[in-house]
Amino acid sequence: MKTAAMIVIGDEVLSGRTRDANMNTLAKIMNDHGIVLREARFIPDDEDIIVSTINEMRMGIDYVFTSGGIGPTHDDITASAVAKAFNVDISIRDDAREILENFYGDDLNPARLRMARIPAGAKLIDNPVSQAPGFQLDNVYVMAGIPMVFNAMLESVRATLVGGAPLKSHSLRIALREGDITDPLATLASQYPNVQIGSYPFFKGSGNGVTLVARATNADILADCVDNMRRMLHELGAKTIFETDL
Amino acid sequence: MKTAAMIVIGDEVLSGRTRDANMNTLAKIMNDHGIVLREARFIPDDEDIIVSTINEMRMGIDYVFTSGGIGPTHDDITASAVAKAFNVDISIRDDAREILENFYGDDLNPARLRMARIPAGAKLIDNPVSQAPGFQLDNVYVMAGIPMVFNAMLESVRATLVGGAPLKSHSLRIALREGDITDPLATLASQYPNVQIGSYPFFKGSGNGVTLVARATNADILADCVDNMRRMLHELGAKTIFETDL
Repeated sequence: MKTAAMIVIGDEVLSGRTRDANMNTLAKIMNDHGIVLREARFIPDDEDIIVSTINEMRMGIDYVFTSGGIGPTHDDITASAVAKAFNVDISIRDDAREILENFYGDDLNPARLRMARIPAGAKLIDNPVSQAPGFQLDNVYVMAGIPMVFNAMLESVRATLVGGAPLKSHSLRIALREGDITDPLATLASQYPNVQIGSYPFFKGSGNGVTLVARATNADILADCVDNMRRMLHELGAKTIFETDL
Repeated sequence: MKTAAMIVIGDEVLSGRTRDANMNTLAKIMNDHGIVLREARFIPDDEDIIVSTINEMRMGIDYVFTSGGIGPTHDDITASAVAKAFNVDISIRDDAREILENFYGDDLNPARLRMARIPAGAKLIDNPVSQAPGFQLDNVYVMAGIPMVFNAMLESVRATLVGGAPLKSHSLRIALREGDITDPLATLASQYPNVQIGSYPFFKGSGNGVTLVARATNADILADCVDNMRRMLHELGAKTIFETDL
């Protein structure tokens, strides 16, 4: 399987001011492409930490995505940190400058021009929302933190991502509690080594229960596993409240 | 400053099925306690990865919180992994068993009893929602993934956390764009080394703009910085749309 990792850069998420939305967006799109999101790290606007995290994660992972820290202000240090991680120069590049000139016209001041600073050897990532581009250097995709811009940049690169067969999944929500089904569920999981079976309990006003999720790349094996899961639940007297393909 | 880190354990978040809520809860509570959340990592239900992540993060960080993977099912491997990380035994402990016996009565089957497996030397963390306890081993707090239970466990331990002066913050939302204020903002930031100044652009239907957030432990310094920020914005012709202490 191809793998991905996410690095969310910014004090605003770690301080609790902002809730990150980009990781969930990335996770779903990786899933559609048959790429496994292996890890996500949320780190502060600190150059040393950004450099070491990028260098640690880009080894052994096929695609690394970053979000945050590529705007015009003093706390936007991601682009320089990526250049430092790759030990390459960073400077204002003509193609990036031209994009900003076309968009900002006379409003293109030196601060905004910082957004045209691109590490040597990088490819630009198109940003149809607010124009200032992201960039790709080797297997690292450097994108904006604002969800609308992150999403647009992800759309710009997703056609180039090479994945495997996407994971299909099937979920069943039942009124039994997790501890009522543990042993038969473990037996089922051991019978289907190529199916990931997860169990997610909930406590809701309408009662406690659990959602069982089976995931596999092979639709036939998945269907067979889900048939056996239904049979197991029927034998345990569990009523299925809701069932869906995700 | 005291520091914290968060480890969110579970395939369901990385697959995009679930959006994590616990990191944001923890971030806000750490902030109230004057503890800096330095990093958060989202990792899969994989024993080797859990062990290495815990061992990496518990060094040099004051408080490490984990969420997820302490239920009764086959994919709940966090407790064993924590024991392995600390190189201590894990077994069913009498006090934890008693809590489960009192709650489940005759429904306490072997699967549920797994939730009484506690690494040697750990302290239990009270769980008033669904009873099965979390535990604390040295500076690592092992808690549930279900937000309602995670929140309750965090409430159980928060009185024991020792932090510093909490960060106060003040935010101003203005209609200017980020690139219009970058230089004066950088100058202001350099004049207040003890104030963190963040700049968060937004693109909304009602227009583009930016929210400026100033954060400091010293209320007088913060107020002085915000006064100067208002003056700077006034000189730039920016209208404050919304202003608040957070």
